[in-house]
Amino acid sequence: MKSLSKRGLSMPSSPIRKLAPYADKAKEKGRHIYHLNIGQPDIHTPDSFMQPIKNLDMPVLAYGPSGGFLSLRKKLTEYYARYDINLNHEDILVTTGGSEAIIFAFMAIADPGDEIIIPEPFYTNYNGFAVEAGVNIVPITSSIEDDFQLPPIARIADQITDKTRAILICNPNNPTGYVYSEEELEALRKIVLEHNIFLLADEVYREFTYDNLQHKSILTLSEIEDRTIMLDSVSKRYSACGARIGMIASRNEEVISAALKFGMARLCPPSIEQIGVEAGIDTPKAYFDEVLDEYRERRNVMVGKLREMPGVVAPMPKGAFYLVVKLPVDDADAFTQWLLTDFHIDNETVMIAPANGFYFSAGLGKNEVRIAYVLRIEDIKKAMHILSEALKVYPGRSEPVSQAQASQHMAKH
Amino acid sequence: MKSLSKRGLSMPSSPIRKLAPYADKAKEKGRHIYHLNIGQPDIHTPDSFMQPIKNLDMPVLAYGPSGGFLSLRKKLTEYYARYDINLNHEDILVTTGGSEAIIFAFMAIADPGDEIIIPEPFYTNYNGFAVEAGVNIVPITSSIEDDFQLPPIARIADQITDKTRAILICNPNNPTGYVYSEEELEALRKIVLEHNIFLLADEVYREFTYDNLQHKSILTLSEIEDRTIMLDSVSKRYSACGARIGMIASRNEEVISAALKFGMARLCPPSIEQIGVEAGIDTPKAYFDEVLDEYRERRNVMVGKLREMPGVVAPMPKGAFYLVVKLPVDDADAFTQWLLTDFHIDNETVMIAPANGFYFSAGLGKNEVRIAYVLRIEDIKKAMHILSEALKVYPGRSEPVSQAQASQHMAKH
Repeated sequence: MKSLSKRGLSMPSSPIRKLAPYADKAKEKGRHIYHLNIGQPDIHTPDSFMQPIKNLDMPVLAYGPSGGFLSLRKKLTEYYARYDINLNHEDILVTTGGSEAIIFAFMAIADPGDEIIIPEPFYTNYNGFAVEAGVNIVPITSSIEDDFQLPPIARIADQITDKTRAILICNPNNPTGYVYSEEELEALRKIVLEHNIFLLADEVYREFTYDNLQHKSILTLSEIEDRTIMLDSVSKRYSACGARIGMIASRNEEVISAALKFGMARLCPPSIEQIGVEAGIDTPKAYFDEVLDEYRERRNVMVGKLREMPGVVAPMPKGAFYLVVKLPVDDADAFTQWLLTDFHIDNETVMIAPANGFYFSAGLGKNEVRIAYVLRIEDIKKAMHILSEALKVYPGRSEPVSQAQASQHMAKH
Repeated sequence: MKSLSKRGLSMPSSPIRKLAPYADKAKEKGRHIYHLNIGQPDIHTPDSFMQPIKNLDMPVLAYGPSGGFLSLRKKLTEYYARYDINLNHEDILVTTGGSEAIIFAFMAIADPGDEIIIPEPFYTNYNGFAVEAGVNIVPITSSIEDDFQLPPIARIADQITDKTRAILICNPNNPTGYVYSEEELEALRKIVLEHNIFLLADEVYREFTYDNLQHKSILTLSEIEDRTIMLDSVSKRYSACGARIGMIASRNEEVISAALKFGMARLCPPSIEQIGVEAGIDTPKAYFDEVLDEYRERRNVMVGKLREMPGVVAPMPKGAFYLVVKLPVDDADAFTQWLLTDFHIDNETVMIAPANGFYFSAGLGKNEVRIAYVLRIEDIKKAMHILSEALKVYPGRSEPVSQAQASQHMAKH
């Protein structure tokens, strides 16, 4: 068979989606699966978003502008202003999902062989975008013991070379749920200023912060306006993952011009969903308050249950709707697969994502998993019960339950 | 200001869209513009496509599968079978527009520095995809004097090097309207077999052939099943350019696997429009018959009018809804801009695309333009009248009207 490019061969499969065949087989056997493996919320898309689509009066579903509908770009300035992000509509381009915002940013600022520094664990698909753009990722490891805070800035500085084009953060973080502090953002501000590199932030979980924590956008940082690029998406905000509408925003007009050229090549983002997004911006605040209350409660329930399980290390996430936890297993890949192939309670099991796919450095995250709290509290309770029982009997458990219980007992006191 | 990547800087602007600011200014002056510059049909999107979107009952606008909804992929096999293209649903991936199908194909089969041979003039956005993928385009010039048929196969063979990964054709052709004959496809079949390279075909205008000409897909060519990749889109078929739904189809399962990995990185194509496309496949044949009759008539009217204009060379296109014509002007860039800035009849003017952007080789197409016959016949007549009068008075006319008339008169006899 005619062979592929090196790029085609080296492109990673999604580690989040690689267990899908096992899940399909389990479902064929009639097994119910609690999907905590993917950031697909069960929250209803607001009516404000969907109604204009149902009322659509568009005789010709025509091309829109390459940078998105002007009316949407203008409306987005209103949305961002609510978060003290003051933008002109010329600073914003509408993209086909946050994914496209990231790939456009990578391509606009980096050439093949250039480097982008990213704290790990990170959203696994950054790997795919890096392969597509020919960019080398340089990981800086954050650790579960430190609640995944930003690694010491000196360790980041050590990694900057003449190939370094940017530092990319995800804030609030997928997969860890960490929210960067003002001090951490200030440290990043200084380092990009000093080394004359870009600062990119994936801020798609902006709305999802807990315990009265306020998210701060990189676009509010002073003196580096020409080197901050914010990447955004409506997928989580309006529970509209299938809409494929994202944004790239920057006050560096050359960045926006270059992104627009990439946008021109693919003509335009989808038209119908842009109409939904524009109307969605007027969704009543009550919708978001309710959503946030729900997620906070889910988080509390999940972390509470996880911390009751012997040998499990579960930091309290401050934002997004994921957490990375350490499990008392030899290999999280094997364990998450075993949950689908060999374990069930009353014909139900749980699907979670092995965390090694979120680390760039080989060998890290081997006994960690990412869990998304995207189901109703009743379902989360059932799923946590299944996980707890599974850990007790999993053949590859790394330490006996009793010993784990003992060491956890000691750690508490 | 922090500087961009070489890739960001070298990315071309769309030559189709670069005149847009002049058009905007003309509109501000209250001028009506006949848009013959872009392949945006005025044909109504069929009800079969739009109705299920209006009836949408989807509480959560969730992620779909990365390769598109399974039901849509299955339905597409039914659609393709109507054109003697027999595919399994595993051979088809749904992409975000034909654009994404092309970029996935480029990335899956070629690495930076590799070469893809394309007959020119060609769809200008191939340039952008090549820059994104780091692939070098090797053009083979077809000429207006030969109605833009495939250049002699020996000239193509001469360009094949150890860097050559594929030949890409667009069939029916945008911008020329040419439809490749069985003999031409057979010649391509032999050359890709002999040189062990891929054959890619952009077949998005499949439905649009005239004078009882049958379009033949590269997927029907024998013995090269492992090296044919077909790129498709619903944009023109259902007049649904804003839907951003395309397809990549190949019987080379490694190609489809690689494309799926690129697809996983961007998660999924837009969900709502996929529902429209799936239903659209059952659009009654009468809709397409009517559309085709309309385009044939538009083509006939336009070519008739163009051939009446002294000094204009207008081949009769066999498919798609574009034609490339030679105008008696010094510089088509200047002329098309002048139409927007300096010319009008009763406050109306016409927008057409300079053809140089469709040629890769510098200096070619300087006095050619692409015209899309995407308006109603009444409007086409008015637009052709404006063009005809404009050519008479344009200051950069390359030969006097009377001389052009004389030479045209001679050419006819």
